[in-house]
Amino acid sequence: MRVGIFGGGQLAQMLVQAAISLGVEVVICERTPDSPAARYTQHAVVGPWEDEAVLAGFARQCDLVTLENEFIDAGLLERVVALGAPVWPTPATVAVVQDKLWQKERLAAAGLAVPPFRPVAGPDEVLAVAQEFGWPLVLKARRNGYDGYGNATLRGPADVVPAWERLTRGGSPLLVEAWVPFSRELAVMVARRRDGATAVYPVVETVQQNHICHVVYAPAPVEPAMAALATELAVAAIEAVEGVGIFGVELFALADGRVLINELAPRPHNSGHYTIEACVTSQFEQHLRAVLGWPLGPTTMRAPAAVMVNLLGQRNGPIDTSAITAALAVPGAHMHFYGKREERVGRKMGHITALADTLAEAEAIARRAAALVAMPS
Amino acid sequence: MRVGIFGGGQLAQMLVQAAISLGVEVVICERTPDSPAARYTQHAVVGPWEDEAVLAGFARQCDLVTLENEFIDAGLLERVVALGAPVWPTPATVAVVQDKLWQKERLAAAGLAVPPFRPVAGPDEVLAVAQEFGWPLVLKARRNGYDGYGNATLRGPADVVPAWERLTRGGSPLLVEAWVPFSRELAVMVARRRDGATAVYPVVETVQQNHICHVVYAPAPVEPAMAALATELAVAAIEAVEGVGIFGVELFALADGRVLINELAPRPHNSGHYTIEACVTSQFEQHLRAVLGWPLGPTTMRAPAAVMVNLLGQRNGPIDTSAITAALAVPGAHMHFYGKREERVGRKMGHITALADTLAEAEAIARRAAALVAMPS
Repeated sequence: MRVGIFGGGQLAQMLVQAAISLGVEVVICERTPDSPAARYTQHAVVGPWEDEAVLAGFARQCDLVTLENEFIDAGLLERVVALGAPVWPTPATVAVVQDKLWQKERLAAAGLAVPPFRPVAGPDEVLAVAQEFGWPLVLKARRNGYDGYGNATLRGPADVVPAWERLTRGGSPLLVEAWVPFSRELAVMVARRRDGATAVYPVVETVQQNHICHVVYAPAPVEPAMAALATELAVAAIEAVEGVGIFGVELFALADGRVLINELAPRPHNSGHYTIEACVTSQFEQHLRAVLGWPLGPTTMRAPAAVMVNLLGQRNGPIDTSAITAALAVPGAHMHFYGKREERVGRKMGHITALADTLAEAEAIARRAAALVAMPS
Repeated sequence: MRVGIFGGGQLAQMLVQAAISLGVEVVICERTPDSPAARYTQHAVVGPWEDEAVLAGFARQCDLVTLENEFIDAGLLERVVALGAPVWPTPATVAVVQDKLWQKERLAAAGLAVPPFRPVAGPDEVLAVAQEFGWPLVLKARRNGYDGYGNATLRGPADVVPAWERLTRGGSPLLVEAWVPFSRELAVMVARRRDGATAVYPVVETVQQNHICHVVYAPAPVEPAMAALATELAVAAIEAVEGVGIFGVELFALADGRVLINELAPRPHNSGHYTIEACVTSQFEQHLRAVLGWPLGPTTMRAPAAVMVNLLGQRNGPIDTSAITAALAVPGAHMHFYGKREERVGRKMGHITALADTLAEAEAIARRAAALVAMPS
């Protein structure tokens, strides 16, 4: 079997790693050569995704195609299907999920709890929504946002116009959401096959730093009732978008016990990296099983607790490998370096996962190793 | 960092899988294209290893070079060093280990327990050794034997000439060993860095079928004293050959509690595949850490028991993928398919590892999955 992946970043790289065990070959389609994932396959297609020859060359090599990010026009995915390679998740699912308005409309229509939201066509409409929702508000680009790029928190009328100007620069229309006074952010990975079979991972807590996922606690230290609610919402959300493959579901937990869906990602997700070591089946292997229509694997944890810490760039410049080797000396810290050629402030350079009997122990190990990476000698 | 590997089979493939997490790139040097490991790298050199241009092209791309099998002339490894790429383990170590006579002489000189052995230049000398050692004897090619190819058990004088004719066909000189009435076969993986630091894995029991490693039990169900003896011998053996990288040490356990060294392998080893899921650091990651001079990782097991079962070809012909997917339905069976294009009777097609609280439980899971692979629908 040969699986094609749109995108050659670290998510695709970790999919290749999982594919090796399954005897599955991977074709990476990326705009530029030498992407992190393309280094680990003999099958790479390089060129603009909008180029029909690129798409045709890609489709021809693949038994099926999937994606590592949602920043590809669903219309191009339709072209790949027309060229003879099935795409999972389907272009229709990606079209809904990649537009934050359509995604929320679909979830709300399915009766699932989401924060109040409204499409907005100009700053005046934002002010009108504020009358209804109150401040603060969250203004979002409907498409192509990630890690806080494409989002702005509006604390009052004075924030509206500057945020509007910044966020519309990418050309995407915007929507506005009520700001949710969450007590925690949770996430759940859900895998679903085209026959509707699902596999759900434990509920985790995610802690963001500057809108970037920074630490993941698995399992989330929440009451069983809240974990059950989050799990139920996550599965229902993926059913609502008819998802096939692995999906990340980000949720807000409120102090009163309610849980709201924040956003979906139609692909492996940063909040699921802990599954590589901590679960019987990693999110990456599970994604391949799901899109191939193969049996889903157990999602149970192999240790009582796991903590993942992202390694975010601290400076701009070439990678300092001495920092990597220092961190390897921390026993039990599972290192993942994405092989990016350049470090940039805030860029995801890698991650570290530690397993232990308690979250506190696991966190101590992961943070000790991360600190060594963050302070190159 | 870029690590070159001589050989493109499943051991190299699993090294690539481990390299991804470390941000290390891999260059595969193999005689034929489309080797299992070459499918998972953008850097492959294809051609005869004896060709200076092949060696030069390979050495130029690598920060260091290692190997996945010992069937490469140590003189060629010396050439690679001369071309500017360090080779670990060193050509001198490989030269000693790849010759079963030299290997045994080295181990015996270090005072380590090995079965009685003797080089033999003709059938008459075998008969002479039989006077001393008694029957049965084991006749072995000094070089290029594996999985029983290159070995013959001689039960009496009538077996000598046919075995001599078969084993000398490969051109290698032969040696003869006393047959050891072992009660179990054990194995230990040892990683060693060039500064002498070592990391030792748990002692495992291996069960062979037709001279091919078939099942591995980790940890071996032996008394602590025997495990300690096996561990001590294994570390001393790798020190005796000044090994750098990971080494497999095969041992014979005798009913009277003695342990003898059978053979060394200067590379990842089938008896260490269980470490991928069952140990904090897999043998493959550990090998990369060792040859790169990076900190060695913990070798502790992450579950009380693990069993690995090899998937050996049952027939000759193209791979039947339906058998693979059936086996994926067994919860907790970690599947590894090597992606070989053709199944052949007795060929190693993959392996399955299961973890559990007891060896019996782990074995039941692994064997259930293996039976599904072995009986394609």
